[in-house]
Amino acid sequence: MTRLFNDPADFADEALAGFVAAHRRWVRPVTGGVVRSAGTPAGQVAVVIGGGSGHYPAFSGLVGAGLAHGAAVGNVFASPSAQQIRGVARAAHGGAGVLLMYGNYAGDVLHFGQAADRLNAEGVPTATFAVTDDISSAPADQTAKRRGIAGDLPVFKAAAAAAEAGQPLEEVARIAAHANARTRSFGIAFSGCTLPGAQEPLFTVPAGRMAVGLGIHGEPGIGEAVLPTADEAAELLVAGLLKELPDGVTAPTGHRAAVILNGLGSVKYEELFVVYRRVAELLQEAGVTVVEPEVGELVTSFDMAGVSLTLTWLDAQLEPLWTAPADTPALRKGAVAPAAAVPATAPQSAPETEDDALPQGTAASRETAVTAAAALRAVAATVAEHAEELGRIDAVAGDGDHGIGMLRGATAADTAARDAAERGAGAGTVLHRAADAWADRAGGTSGALWGTILHALGDALGDEERPTAAAVAAGVGRASEEVRRVGGARVGDKTMVDVLVPFADTLAAATGAGDRLAAAWDRAAGAAGEAAAATADLLPQMGRARPHAEKSLGTPDAGAHSLALIVRAVHGVLSDTTEEH
Amino acid sequence: MTRLFNDPADFADEALAGFVAAHRRWVRPVTGGVVRSAGTPAGQVAVVIGGGSGHYPAFSGLVGAGLAHGAAVGNVFASPSAQQIRGVARAAHGGAGVLLMYGNYAGDVLHFGQAADRLNAEGVPTATFAVTDDISSAPADQTAKRRGIAGDLPVFKAAAAAAEAGQPLEEVARIAAHANARTRSFGIAFSGCTLPGAQEPLFTVPAGRMAVGLGIHGEPGIGEAVLPTADEAAELLVAGLLKELPDGVTAPTGHRAAVILNGLGSVKYEELFVVYRRVAELLQEAGVTVVEPEVGELVTSFDMAGVSLTLTWLDAQLEPLWTAPADTPALRKGAVAPAAAVPATAPQSAPETEDDALPQGTAASRETAVTAAAALRAVAATVAEHAEELGRIDAVAGDGDHGIGMLRGATAADTAARDAAERGAGAGTVLHRAADAWADRAGGTSGALWGTILHALGDALGDEERPTAAAVAAGVGRASEEVRRVGGARVGDKTMVDVLVPFADTLAAATGAGDRLAAAWDRAAGAAGEAAAATADLLPQMGRARPHAEKSLGTPDAGAHSLALIVRAVHGVLSDTTEEH
Repeated sequence: MTRLFNDPADFADEALAGFVAAHRRWVRPVTGGVVRSAGTPAGQVAVVIGGGSGHYPAFSGLVGAGLAHGAAVGNVFASPSAQQIRGVARAAHGGAGVLLMYGNYAGDVLHFGQAADRLNAEGVPTATFAVTDDISSAPADQTAKRRGIAGDLPVFKAAAAAAEAGQPLEEVARIAAHANARTRSFGIAFSGCTLPGAQEPLFTVPAGRMAVGLGIHGEPGIGEAVLPTADEAAELLVAGLLKELPDGVTAPTGHRAAVILNGLGSVKYEELFVVYRRVAELLQEAGVTVVEPEVGELVTSFDMAGVSLTLTWLDAQLEPLWTAPADTPALRKGAVAPAAAVPATAPQSAPETEDDALPQGTAASRETAVTAAAALRAVAATVAEHAEELGRIDAVAGDGDHGIGMLRGATAADTAARDAAERGAGAGTVLHRAADAWADRAGGTSGALWGTILHALGDALGDEERPTAAAVAAGVGRASEEVRRVGGARVGDKTMVDVLVPFADTLAAATGAGDRLAAAWDRAAGAAGEAAAATADLLPQMGRARPHAEKSLGTPDAGAHSLALIVRAVHGVLSDTTEEH
Repeated sequence: MTRLFNDPADFADEALAGFVAAHRRWVRPVTGGVVRSAGTPAGQVAVVIGGGSGHYPAFSGLVGAGLAHGAAVGNVFASPSAQQIRGVARAAHGGAGVLLMYGNYAGDVLHFGQAADRLNAEGVPTATFAVTDDISSAPADQTAKRRGIAGDLPVFKAAAAAAEAGQPLEEVARIAAHANARTRSFGIAFSGCTLPGAQEPLFTVPAGRMAVGLGIHGEPGIGEAVLPTADEAAELLVAGLLKELPDGVTAPTGHRAAVILNGLGSVKYEELFVVYRRVAELLQEAGVTVVEPEVGELVTSFDMAGVSLTLTWLDAQLEPLWTAPADTPALRKGAVAPAAAVPATAPQSAPETEDDALPQGTAASRETAVTAAAALRAVAATVAEHAEELGRIDAVAGDGDHGIGMLRGATAADTAARDAAERGAGAGTVLHRAADAWADRAGGTSGALWGTILHALGDALGDEERPTAAAVAAGVGRASEEVRRVGGARVGDKTMVDVLVPFADTLAAATGAGDRLAAAWDRAAGAAGEAAAATADLLPQMGRARPHAEKSLGTPDAGAHSLALIVRAVHGVLSDTTEEH
């Protein structure tokens, strides 16, 4: 379990500060994460990686010559926000564009995608790539659904070495895709980690058993089996990977492969070596030549007990990229000259702070802005009241961080909204500022989606007119569409979409029928509450349930439940303040 | 706990094989451990480090350019044998002598000391140095009694960098002593590791508590306290080290220090960074300039949960040695060109095998040799019968490996003795061969002491005459003296010496009074049995007891108990076969 922390809410920030203090030769801090201390050479594509904290050396430990140019560092097991990613990308940009790389998780896909949109709009050519190496997370015909685990490393490294060699952005992105297509990982786990401040591990495996197919956040495996000997573990892992060869590799014999045997945290070095001994024998028997293997802790999950094997099937293009020199805090390869650090007094290319000139609203819109700020205050209060409950519900089928993420986001949104309203902003600007603050502080999937919701509402309300009930309903409808587009979930998937869609539809119908906003909202909030409860009607989907999660029966989805609580809280503000129709 | 292993008895050998398979660029295997793949440059002092397995990257992971020239790799938590150390030292020797370096533990001191004696006798100039950095293991006025923990690394590195710079053996040894005198470590622990195949951890700490002052084999701390926050942990560790400054450092202000924050296994990277953040602040506040800190896992204890802080107070001589380049599997510093590996076909300078020409005994001595071999067979049988019990007893106050170590040693001695006796050796040679085999296979303190006992008996019996009872008693007396000289224990310390001395004295008195050997041995074995039981009479000494080891009341010392069992088993052979007087 994780024992050494101060305030758990500060854990990721404090870990990053200590990491930077210990590794100034390689990295310097920027808004949202770190970049190379020596900067990105002018004209070189910048590879910016990132993800949640708790996986060291992923991701900050892989920044340095020959590997990443920067890393965006999220909260514990939560994606960095689009704003953080943008901050790191702007600091790392060397004038030749940016490739954003990350493991394929919903929150990361959302935030990195939003960051790329913004960077491109700002004139920084940006592409994204999500690693999908974990063969146990989806079938072979659905590789796009697979997660990224320890295969992150060889895919990041191939792209970064291509960037270092002067390749343009399109080619660096193509090489990332090529390396990913030839990279497979498979893992087993014996126990889960306990997050800082949590009382229980994310999952448990019965004594003497193992979970087959691990996720690095405690996601479910594909089965359970008797605890193997070291040799049996090696045989299981090698057999799993030799069963699914990539296109272009019809049989293993005669091929060359980069090999990573990765410990998740408390499967220790000597155990890994005992397993590797047999892995090396088996690969040799299969006719595979191992190239510069790595045996150690490359992608961890705090002190989770587990091990994964990664193979990258090398070809003439990938092998020199794998063996190319690298000099980072956690991985060094080949002959490397220490890079000169940027002097502390040199101007740092940190992103400019947001333009502080606040667009002023009309008198009418400023009145609406006060109501919007009051609504966000009510949202923050209800989230604070229910944060622990939300975490508990989320721990049944997710990683238990929904409460803390929502609390961070809602609190930040409240502060930003009040500040903007006090300084004379209209309702649209107030909601836009709140949206950015929520997404930036919360991170994770819920942060991205709440940022999307508030942004859509802000667009609908604008800074000039007093909105009609129909305009509010249209904004909510737009938010409902955007959340489905960005998040990819549909009604019936047991997510917040199951609540947002009937809420928006009921609100539109009621306002269309002439109801005042407060009355319409009341009906819609009722529909939302029913829909949230209905997410608990059935067994959770197998893809989201943990093994042994029998207790999940009857538990609603955390995101659905929090949305229903929030719209109910907002109704209290509308009925207090509005007869504005 | 350690979960991935095959036969636990093979764990250390298999881990070494896997380590070598993964790191051929840096190391190649030799008898007893590993040496640099590139060999030792001619004319350079070779620094050979070593210790038990289970502490990776100590010790094999620290072999490479700029650091160790070789590592002797013992069994799990057991010193390598003198024979192993000699094998590695001979392979690493570059013609300018060898410095053997290790942490200050009884077994290591014995085996490295014996190896040095033999190497010097063979014409390889050899010195030894034991690191003593752990301030919690003995008071400041008894630094020679302190253990070596993570401070091993900076002391090894200072000496190795001096060797790399071409310093002669005396100067390399002097620098080791100087670095050690300026190196201090202090640690805390939250849980112990569970060895491969063991059912229980070596020690436990109650939930929410910590042990202050850790040992890397589960040795006791100096106290227990409430689990601290990360900042409190940093404050405790820094304050402990700033309280005991080395000679020449009157106050911390203005000094420079190498800093290592070491995780023992399952205190993970982000936790270490959170703690390091505060360590760095505190050292800055104290006016200490940190030079190239290391934050990670440098000396581990399987998956033990603990953390230690090491400071090496640098001066003009030590700082360039700390920052000098190094290129090893686990630690790389500075700009390093990959060393060319010795081609696999090149002649390897592995030590020659023992001269196989066996000195032949006289007919009389060959009869005695048969008895000696039978006695060793009985010893092996009784050790096998009691191995589990011995392990259980040892786990009360030691690390629980006494049974497995004795079994390995006694079995090897049995085989070697039978082989020598069948091939016509006299009793002296049979016992010498058994002594070497026991010490080599068992490792650890008990292996060294049983090697000493059998060697002294072989000296007394020789290869020519049929020994008298008095000659046997004199040999036992000599063994008793040697064990006290080599091991440093005295009667009353609750070790095997408490049994060996009355056994030898009773045997001498009885044979002196005219008893036949079998009868005298019987009386002496009786005295040994009483003496062994008496080691359980009192509370175990505080220095050897674990915290919370209430169950140790009434448990005899494992080494004392096994000696009493063995002399009783030997009596059975003497009464069966001897009226030889």
